[in-house]
Amino acid sequence: MTAFQRPSGRAPDQLRPVLLERHYTRHAEGSVLVAFGDTRVLCNATVEEKVPPFLRGKGEGWVTAEYGMLPRATKERTQREAARGGQGGRTMEIQRLIGRSLRACVDRAALGERTITLDCDVLQADGGTRTAAITGAYVAMVDAVNRLKQQRLIKKDPVIGAIAAVSVGVFRGVPVLDLDYAEDAAADTDMNVVMNDGGGFIELQGTAEGHAFRRDELDALLALAGKGVAELVQLQRQALAHVTG
Amino acid sequence: MTAFQRPSGRAPDQLRPVLLERHYTRHAEGSVLVAFGDTRVLCNATVEEKVPPFLRGKGEGWVTAEYGMLPRATKERTQREAARGGQGGRTMEIQRLIGRSLRACVDRAALGERTITLDCDVLQADGGTRTAAITGAYVAMVDAVNRLKQQRLIKKDPVIGAIAAVSVGVFRGVPVLDLDYAEDAAADTDMNVVMNDGGGFIELQGTAEGHAFRRDELDALLALAGKGVAELVQLQRQALAHVTG
Amino acid sequence: MTAFQRPSGRAPDQLRPVLLERHYTRHAEGSVLVAFGDTRVLCNATVEEKVPPFLRGKGEGWVTAEYGMLPRATKERTQREAARGGQGGRTMEIQRLIGRSLRACVDRAALGERTITLDCDVLQADGGTRTAAITGAYVAMVDAVNRLKQQRLIKKDPVIGAIAAVSVGVFRGVPVLDLDYAEDAAADTDMNVVMNDGGGFIELQGTAEGHAFRRDELDALLALAGKGVAELVQLQRQALAHVTG
Amino acid sequence: MTAFQRPSGRAPDQLRPVLLERHYTRHAEGSVLVAFGDTRVLCNATVEEKVPPFLRGKGEGWVTAEYGMLPRATKERTQREAARGGQGGRTMEIQRLIGRSLRACVDRAALGERTITLDCDVLQADGGTRTAAITGAYVAMVDAVNRLKQQRLIKKDPVIGAIAAVSVGVFRGVPVLDLDYAEDAAADTDMNVVMNDGGGFIELQGTAEGHAFRRDELDALLALAGKGVAELVQLQRQALAHVTG
Amino acid sequence: MTAFQRPSGRAPDQLRPVLLERHYTRHAEGSVLVAFGDTRVLCNATVEEKVPPFLRGKGEGWVTAEYGMLPRATKERTQREAARGGQGGRTMEIQRLIGRSLRACVDRAALGERTITLDCDVLQADGGTRTAAITGAYVAMVDAVNRLKQQRLIKKDPVIGAIAAVSVGVFRGVPVLDLDYAEDAAADTDMNVVMNDGGGFIELQGTAEGHAFRRDELDALLALAGKGVAELVQLQRQALAHVTG
Amino acid sequence: MTAFQRPSGRAPDQLRPVLLERHYTRHAEGSVLVAFGDTRVLCNATVEEKVPPFLRGKGEGWVTAEYGMLPRATKERTQREAARGGQGGRTMEIQRLIGRSLRACVDRAALGERTITLDCDVLQADGGTRTAAITGAYVAMVDAVNRLKQQRLIKKDPVIGAIAAVSVGVFRGVPVLDLDYAEDAAADTDMNVVMNDGGGFIELQGTAEGHAFRRDELDALLALAGKGVAELVQLQRQALAHVTG
Repeated sequence: MTAFQRPSGRAPDQLRPVLLERHYTRHAEGSVLVAFGDTRVLCNATVEEKVPPFLRGKGEGWVTAEYGMLPRATKERTQREAARGGQGGRTMEIQRLIGRSLRACVDRAALGERTITLDCDVLQADGGTRTAAITGAYVAMVDAVNRLKQQRLIKKDPVIGAIAAVSVGVFRGVPVLDLDYAEDAAADTDMNVVMNDGGGFIELQGTAEGHAFRRDELDALLALAGKGVAELVQLQRQALAHVTG
Repeated sequence: MTAFQRPSGRAPDQLRPVLLERHYTRHAEGSVLVAFGDTRVLCNATVEEKVPPFLRGKGEGWVTAEYGMLPRATKERTQREAARGGQGGRTMEIQRLIGRSLRACVDRAALGERTITLDCDVLQADGGTRTAAITGAYVAMVDAVNRLKQQRLIKKDPVIGAIAAVSVGVFRGVPVLDLDYAEDAAADTDMNVVMNDGGGFIELQGTAEGHAFRRDELDALLALAGKGVAELVQLQRQALAHVTG
Repeated sequence: MTAFQRPSGRAPDQLRPVLLERHYTRHAEGSVLVAFGDTRVLCNATVEEKVPPFLRGKGEGWVTAEYGMLPRATKERTQREAARGGQGGRTMEIQRLIGRSLRACVDRAALGERTITLDCDVLQADGGTRTAAITGAYVAMVDAVNRLKQQRLIKKDPVIGAIAAVSVGVFRGVPVLDLDYAEDAAADTDMNVVMNDGGGFIELQGTAEGHAFRRDELDALLALAGKGVAELVQLQRQALAHVTG
Repeated sequence: MTAFQRPSGRAPDQLRPVLLERHYTRHAEGSVLVAFGDTRVLCNATVEEKVPPFLRGKGEGWVTAEYGMLPRATKERTQREAARGGQGGRTMEIQRLIGRSLRACVDRAALGERTITLDCDVLQADGGTRTAAITGAYVAMVDAVNRLKQQRLIKKDPVIGAIAAVSVGVFRGVPVLDLDYAEDAAADTDMNVVMNDGGGFIELQGTAEGHAFRRDELDALLALAGKGVAELVQLQRQALAHVTG
Repeated sequence: MTAFQRPSGRAPDQLRPVLLERHYTRHAEGSVLVAFGDTRVLCNATVEEKVPPFLRGKGEGWVTAEYGMLPRATKERTQREAARGGQGGRTMEIQRLIGRSLRACVDRAALGERTITLDCDVLQADGGTRTAAITGAYVAMVDAVNRLKQQRLIKKDPVIGAIAAVSVGVFRGVPVLDLDYAEDAAADTDMNVVMNDGGGFIELQGTAEGHAFRRDELDALLALAGKGVAELVQLQRQALAHVTG
Repeated sequence: MTAFQRPSGRAPDQLRPVLLERHYTRHAEGSVLVAFGDTRVLCNATVEEKVPPFLRGKGEGWVTAEYGMLPRATKERTQREAARGGQGGRTMEIQRLIGRSLRACVDRAALGERTITLDCDVLQADGGTRTAAITGAYVAMVDAVNRLKQQRLIKKDPVIGAIAAVSVGVFRGVPVLDLDYAEDAAADTDMNVVMNDGGGFIELQGTAEGHAFRRDELDALLALAGKGVAELVQLQRQALAHVTG
């Protein structure tokens, strides 16, 4: 039997090399360049002392996200959304996912009436941009929140636990972790999983592109996702433990 | 111990009354009014002898969907998207989901170079509009395909099996099937599940709104979804078996 | 001489069968499905406790309308206006006409500082969608106003008399009432007439599509319109007299 | 009894001073500055050797119009539609009216596969901009067509007869011709009438702003309109008879 | 050696005939039709008792400009920006230039919390529309400011000196003043220069279209611009000296 | 006399540290991260085998640019243009400037019927983003062109000489080179200068923000710009001489 081989040579349950570089730009309250292999996303956290209209006067904060892709992050140039006159469906879907995921680990009352916006801009894409974005945005958000704590603007830490995200899928019949573009394009099934550091599920978005997936495949994918997120949460902790200027 | 009670009085694993009324309007090639309780969606299937640019000359067809909500389908009036100047993120997310789900049960080579567009317009909303839309749009698509067969425009049936969709969630700690608006607004966890008649998963979109959901909760939700989809597929079959003018 | 024949077999001065079904959806303050033959329009009335900026603080209310057409209301699929990025000229023209017509029978001071919005959405089109919309929207508006009276939010009835609308035209040289699509497409002259129950004219919009119309033709058309509106006002009264839950 | 008085001192059946200045700008194939009193509209006719997609290959031409208002044509500055991101409902309604009116006096087969676009831009507004625009655009269109004849691009004259437009209304209970802004703002009833030189009606758009108008009022208004259009057609003829470089 | 010849027969340092007609329309607080030869721009100044949000409560005024071109101002018809759904890059660039230029001669504290908007609409284009617009808008602004002074709404004159603008360029190797369209289209280098009546530079926008320009060419162009602006400022003064009703 | 001091401590004629990092991302045909001090712009060059409609079939190529700013490149978060629905005036002005500047050093016939698009995205802003963008985009364009030469798709080098850009301005009365944000915000006069390696001017855009600038100030600024561009061209050469994988 010829051995199953991933295009990158990775083991089925192996993440790509992960980079979490904090303080990547200087103006944002939190600024993290996250890399999952060749996928590179700049995650900037902005804190503003205002909330959307539906929350005014309720004593609660808000966490939201915007997502963008530089035109040449991809192999072929993609038209700039600003030039096309608006954000497309894929962009909106992804930024809503990032926002919901991060809100799931924030105590909005403890945050107070302020908004944290996570801008996730893909500088280079090689599959998994949304999972990298969520994983990096979490670190940028923690940096922004720590600054609020240092400024004594908040008392209680609004961040509850940690979250990270990874993709899993069935590639040539084998469940694999953290798909790159070559795998993603050929996968029958693709699932993005957002989990917290307690192993709880935050978001689960699975799509059968080739054929419907069976229950046993789903179980295998969820196990891989659990392993991947646990490793990512560990890498987030290490990055945040590093003292920086 | 006081008994758990759903607002509608249904059992946890009970669907709302389902209606699948075919030939609801007269111009569309397939036209189905689907009701899941008080949720009512008009699903019209249009067949056009053209494909999007990326498919031209490849001998394959396309299946796509658009979703809309009448301004007063909801309790409070929602601004008309045409008046606001474009479709919002939620709309785009839903219509992409409907389109992907239906493509999962179509052999696009057998369809030939033509496009089936499913217009799903919500006349009245009470939770679960996207799952009702998928379930109804499947029936409208089958009607449209049957017409192509009667006109001998296609030889091989392009529809492979059946698909249906249902929502599941954890409401007051109990996993329940087919959430209505009152449950949806209060649920901790909400998952939309699209499955085929063989029990395979097509789409899985779960969101933890209150707290992250555990693996055992996920298993219970998936079991409920399996039961619900099996019943819906049965109702689709009955509706389609009915001979109509 | 061969007899003149309308495609539908109707007499020249005969309306199509008219349906005015109240309480068609459950959220709107007034909800009427109106049918003029195969033309079916859902008219929902919404009451909101606010007025447009130019009326604030003047103690007067406002009545406005929006019009839409489901993509497959027509024989060929029409592109969704929300997807195209905005409402077209025809839509704007029609919704301005509906709004003006209904304001003509409302005492805006008696309404108080609130807005009634009439959403008229065409589910199925076969000519005369705007006249059906006006006729149905009047009934929906009365239902909404009656609710305000029951809630004792208004004292004096703001609705003065009744209005209804019908189209008239010259088809194959003969003046006819309430044109369906087949007649409309072939008519030389087409006129939409909005009148009140006292026989006064509210709106008159006539267009000579083939040849300019003479004064005697105009007189014949106005007489037909008067007859049609009188019948429609009678049908509105009957529909409103019906006690409903 | 105190005499009825129009703000301008005109007799009820008196037009404002009319100006039809041809060759107002030098690039357009027809260029007419039309003034109805203080209302001044620049009407430029452009001939292009192409037709809209729905007419390609049918051997017929097209006539269309666009309407605009300079921001300070009005007493208060109006926001520029280009800056607001699109044309509003009133603009679309008016330009559709102008286009339909001019098509009513053109033999599109004789025009051949070319388009005449009438750009009507209001430099100064004082009521009646749409009727002035139609009246002036007719002259600009004739100039453009004459050029095609001189260039021997067309053989048969595609312009059949003449059309002109005027507003009529009931002002303080008296039917009057050609309302200026002061009258228009106070009128109970306002009607725009487009007629041809044979006294036939092309377009009739009447609106009861204060109270519904009776049949006898309508008859008086139509008589006034007939008188006004006859005078305008005479002025168009004089303007066109004038030989210009 | 054959003599250098400008298409218009002008000397290299000669302006086109300049017209500055005040009170061109009646509603605007300042209204000037400016002509530089066949280029004709209507400049209307509007005074409004409000400032943009970033200036509220600071006791300062604002001066801004909008620019437009009638579709048939040009040889070929240009699509209407309102119909295209927004202002293009060239329009934005020009209106920003006009606004900055005029703000350079206004003491915004002396103006008080009000905004002057200069609408510059090109009726006919033959090169140099932006320089004509700046030169004419200055006169319209002075008229608007004088009205404020007459109404005693301001005490101190907010207009400091005068500004005017002219284009210069290298045409067939020779530096020339005030290029018309024929020269502009063929010029290697084109520069728009805004200067004040003291000979100071306000804006300098030079573009090498054919080949890069040398320092000595730049010096010659700046000298021409100085001469041209001095003449234009003189013409502005004469126009403003003329007493008008 | 107290010495004049720039906020950064630089000499008046001193550039900020310049970085030109090639091959910054992997998909683009040319990819350069350029830094002028804290201003960092990613310049990606894309080659596509097509030209805009107005150039089809003429045997000439095209060079164009798009400019963007990440929302948190600035001190305060700027709204994303894609979310706002279009590119603003400043963006359009800058991308038109970049495109024109690069076209000035390209022989478009030698390039053949293909387009080079330069995407310049600001990751971090501290003044001078447009001059950094032009300087970096030149290097990215050369890398893209060299690839075409290696692939033997073009024979003759289409790049003629080199171009670079720098800002100059009068800060506290002293002419200075390469303004950072602190200087830019306070400068009386600001000029962006694009020059080629032969000392010729390509673009000159000067704006007097505080007071009009005199001719001797202009001369001093132009001398500074000449010095700065000569140094930048030298740095471009060094960067391009570096052999890279």
